[in-house]
Amino acid sequence: MSRWQPGARERLQQAAHELFAEQGFAATTVPEITARAGLTTRTFFRYFSDKREVLYADDAEVPAMIAMMMASAPPDTEPMALIVEGLQTVAETRFEPRKEALRARRELVCTDAGLQERDLHKRAVMSEAIREGFRTRGVDSVRAALIAEICVTLIAVALNEWLERDDDRRLYEIILETLATLRSSLG
Amino acid sequence: MSRWQPGARERLQQAAHELFAEQGFAATTVPEITARAGLTTRTFFRYFSDKREVLYADDAEVPAMIAMMMASAPPDTEPMALIVEGLQTVAETRFEPRKEALRARRELVCTDAGLQERDLHKRAVMSEAIREGFRTRGVDSVRAALIAEICVTLIAVALNEWLERDDDRRLYEIILETLATLRSSLG
Repeated sequence: MSRWQPGARERLQQAAHELFAEQGFAATTVPEITARAGLTTRTFFRYFSDKREVLYADDAEVPAMIAMMMASAPPDTEPMALIVEGLQTVAETRFEPRKEALRARRELVCTDAGLQERDLHKRAVMSEAIREGFRTRGVDSVRAALIAEICVTLIAVALNEWLERDDDRRLYEIILETLATLRSSLG
Repeated sequence: MSRWQPGARERLQQAAHELFAEQGFAATTVPEITARAGLTTRTFFRYFSDKREVLYADDAEVPAMIAMMMASAPPDTEPMALIVEGLQTVAETRFEPRKEALRARRELVCTDAGLQERDLHKRAVMSEAIREGFRTRGVDSVRAALIAEICVTLIAVALNEWLERDDDRRLYEIILETLATLRSSLG
């Protein structure tokens, strides 16, 4: 009988990220990950359904986080103001401190069609959570769907731009610029 | 040795659509599709990699179609004007005549996570083709990515609204309304 391993989840994530970076995603096996972490494959599958999910483990909380952020905004906040405020919080707390890790992750995703597919799924789940949040706030369904899509588009495009640049522009600044570009494009 | 079967592809598509509608996507097997079409599974796999791809067979031409439409627009056409014109053409020629088939397809996709995933992929491919088209027209990369995403969002949201409504509003009208809602949402 295996017992609960202190920090097992984090050790497995760390080992997986190291191996993905060293030898690529496709070439890395679950036994290699568990060997590096000093744990068993049985322990691995207690935390993750497959090696792909190691990269998305921290996203499970995202829909609940979105629902909470949206429910806590004052009822009269305009939808786009709510989005911009939410993006500022997310950019500063979740993205800004992890720029190098996010860059490594993006490179990894580029190499694997299965990861790209999983990224699209993650994006759809986020959009759906935002749409639901607006519906709960009384926004009509078409507008809720549009603003949710605008939000995930802004994140995707601005994040990409931020990770590609070599200067020290902050992500939130780039998000605001991207929104300005979007507004001017729509005429 | 099997020979080329006249109309085989269309017969297989027809049989698959009938069976999906009658008994659901998950319950339908490739041998059932080929039996209904009076063809062999070998013939099936000459046209489609699996039963899912039957539903997406006509989309293979979409990126080339987008590239052609975008290349043929006058060079000074504004990006959003180009999108609106393109959406009008697509709405009138590809969507409007197939409303019931599109409704049946949408119901089918709702029942199956694999189909939803494939729909997301299709959408990403479209967005990428539009982005590329704008890059070729000299639009900068951020703006090209944003307008491409706006375009696929407009189609997705307006198509959904069109298929849900019981009146005889035209899809193109709903697209224009959705664009107006988008503009007003962005403030």
